[in-house]
Amino acid sequence: MGKEEAAVVTIKDVAKEAGVAPSTVSRVIADSPRISEETKRRVREVMEELGYYPNLQARSLAAKSTKTIGIIMPDSAYHNLQNPFFPEVLRGISKKAHESRYGIYLSTGSSETEIYDEVISMVMGRRVDGIILLYSRINDRTMKYLEKAVFPFTVVGRPSKNEERITYVDNNNVAITKEVTNYLIGLGHEKIAFVGGNLKFVVTVDRLDGYKMALAEAGFPFREEYVVHERFVLEKGKEVTFSLMSLDSPPTAFVAQDDLMAYEMISHLEALNMTVPEDISIVSFNNFSLSEHSKPPLTSVDIGTFRLGYEATQYVIEKIENPDALPKRITIPTRLIERKSCAPRSIGEEQER
Amino acid sequence: MGKEEAAVVTIKDVAKEAGVAPSTVSRVIADSPRISEETKRRVREVMEELGYYPNLQARSLAAKSTKTIGIIMPDSAYHNLQNPFFPEVLRGISKKAHESRYGIYLSTGSSETEIYDEVISMVMGRRVDGIILLYSRINDRTMKYLEKAVFPFTVVGRPSKNEERITYVDNNNVAITKEVTNYLIGLGHEKIAFVGGNLKFVVTVDRLDGYKMALAEAGFPFREEYVVHERFVLEKGKEVTFSLMSLDSPPTAFVAQDDLMAYEMISHLEALNMTVPEDISIVSFNNFSLSEHSKPPLTSVDIGTFRLGYEATQYVIEKIENPDALPKRITIPTRLIERKSCAPRSIGEEQER
Repeated sequence: MGKEEAAVVTIKDVAKEAGVAPSTVSRVIADSPRISEETKRRVREVMEELGYYPNLQARSLAAKSTKTIGIIMPDSAYHNLQNPFFPEVLRGISKKAHESRYGIYLSTGSSETEIYDEVISMVMGRRVDGIILLYSRINDRTMKYLEKAVFPFTVVGRPSKNEERITYVDNNNVAITKEVTNYLIGLGHEKIAFVGGNLKFVVTVDRLDGYKMALAEAGFPFREEYVVHERFVLEKGKEVTFSLMSLDSPPTAFVAQDDLMAYEMISHLEALNMTVPEDISIVSFNNFSLSEHSKPPLTSVDIGTFRLGYEATQYVIEKIENPDALPKRITIPTRLIERKSCAPRSIGEEQER
Repeated sequence: MGKEEAAVVTIKDVAKEAGVAPSTVSRVIADSPRISEETKRRVREVMEELGYYPNLQARSLAAKSTKTIGIIMPDSAYHNLQNPFFPEVLRGISKKAHESRYGIYLSTGSSETEIYDEVISMVMGRRVDGIILLYSRINDRTMKYLEKAVFPFTVVGRPSKNEERITYVDNNNVAITKEVTNYLIGLGHEKIAFVGGNLKFVVTVDRLDGYKMALAEAGFPFREEYVVHERFVLEKGKEVTFSLMSLDSPPTAFVAQDDLMAYEMISHLEALNMTVPEDISIVSFNNFSLSEHSKPPLTSVDIGTFRLGYEATQYVIEKIENPDALPKRITIPTRLIERKSCAPRSIGEEQER
């Protein structure tokens, strides 16, 4: 693939467009420390514009194996590691990496551009043999790059494009969110909010679909004002909770995108003198190990986080060791763990409105 | 330093002792993929026995910088990442690494030997520019190796040897544990157990010292049966809790080494129909973000985990960029956060015994 494209766009074309010598382009491809970060970025931008992808697969066969897997987070590790999902998925990754004697290289970039540059540098500098993306963004530039570069990678999450050409490990987010919403409907709730998540990520899109399906099947209207997309519900938890509860017809139940959001909302509901589950029911996702020790113990979906990481690693290693391995979709089963954060809609609430 | 030692023990000596050619020893030093893991391990064992340390510092100056920091955990990431301490310290590390444009390489070894081999391979293979040890073990072989190899490293924790020659970031564990124990004594407790931690780690030794000091100053006897050293209190929580509570004179308060242990013990105390803080008071360490949402909200010591990681990274980068930087001790302040897991010793309990 790289070869075909190189036949169309050459190093010379890139050099001309970027206003540098062809040897500089070669050095950028090799991620030479002699080239400044600024020049590297400029040349890479031109490569991307012109659609030039060096034949990295051929280089990789010749190059020394690094026995290292690059792990790319959706955002800075600084933010992400606050969420127990990431350490848990890293546990799964490190278990399998250890079993297969691979090391782990963690991304530290804090913006989409920085992360993209980091991935290019990992690939071109041959710092890693393969990459795991711990997220799937709609039309992700990084994923597109890895595909074009024919570099071994797997995704935790469903790719928004070329699903059938990429190996990925995911939950069935549509089905489980439908199930979770139906669970709340079964408890008598009709006014159910969908809280958190960013629609740039496929996981949010899939979960929102499942939520909508359950509402539609139950014959309830979909109400835009019940859907809150806050990337940092943790930081805006108060705002989000207060604005939902001050609606003319406030929700009686929440589907929260993870347990941290649920905890955060519970503490703000307390400030409004509302208790969970008496006044508001909450179901969330991820089933953190502390969910059972929380107050109240959280009803949460076990998404098999450890296995998501373990399987993503197993199949990126497969890709590394056998470039002809076929793309695969691996679906990790999910399970709703009932604890004490949900209750039947109270009769009081019914009469009140 | 490497030079002086090399003058005494040469590559030829190592080769002879290991029964291989001198060129094989050179390849082991360069971590060549052409040498089998078995041979590498054998040659490295001989190097260690004979006290041969290649002059890595000189090599490192010549070698290309990797802009990567190796992070070494005390045990497998698989086990360690279950404890929120590690993601939080990694957050601090990744924040500083990102600010200084370094990447992170995580160890995946699961035994002392595997971790030792991993570090040697990182150093000799020049996979990283510097290393952070996220623990300090008594007489640690890995730390000794890094010292002899004059490789840039810092430690989260107090080294058991050569404190003044090593840059490390630590809490004052003696003082804070004394304070915590005094806090329980101030609430009327006399029978205080010290739970968890492995005496192979300096942090446990220091904390046990602080605990003993507080008891001695209060004039209470030190009772061996109140001290439980279980590496995996999480796995043996039931056993540990039951055996403490079935002593002739059971403790009325626990100093637990981290919040996870505290949660674990609380759940087993419940099985014995004992509640916290009414029957048993618990203070723990680390102040995980979920401690305030737990039941009961935990009284815990904030050890500044994020800053431990951040500062360790800042100073390993200092070491990397300036080999002449002086060794430093950085003490991160601690703070006891009072919540609801401690209460005055009950009068009932007083009369009962």
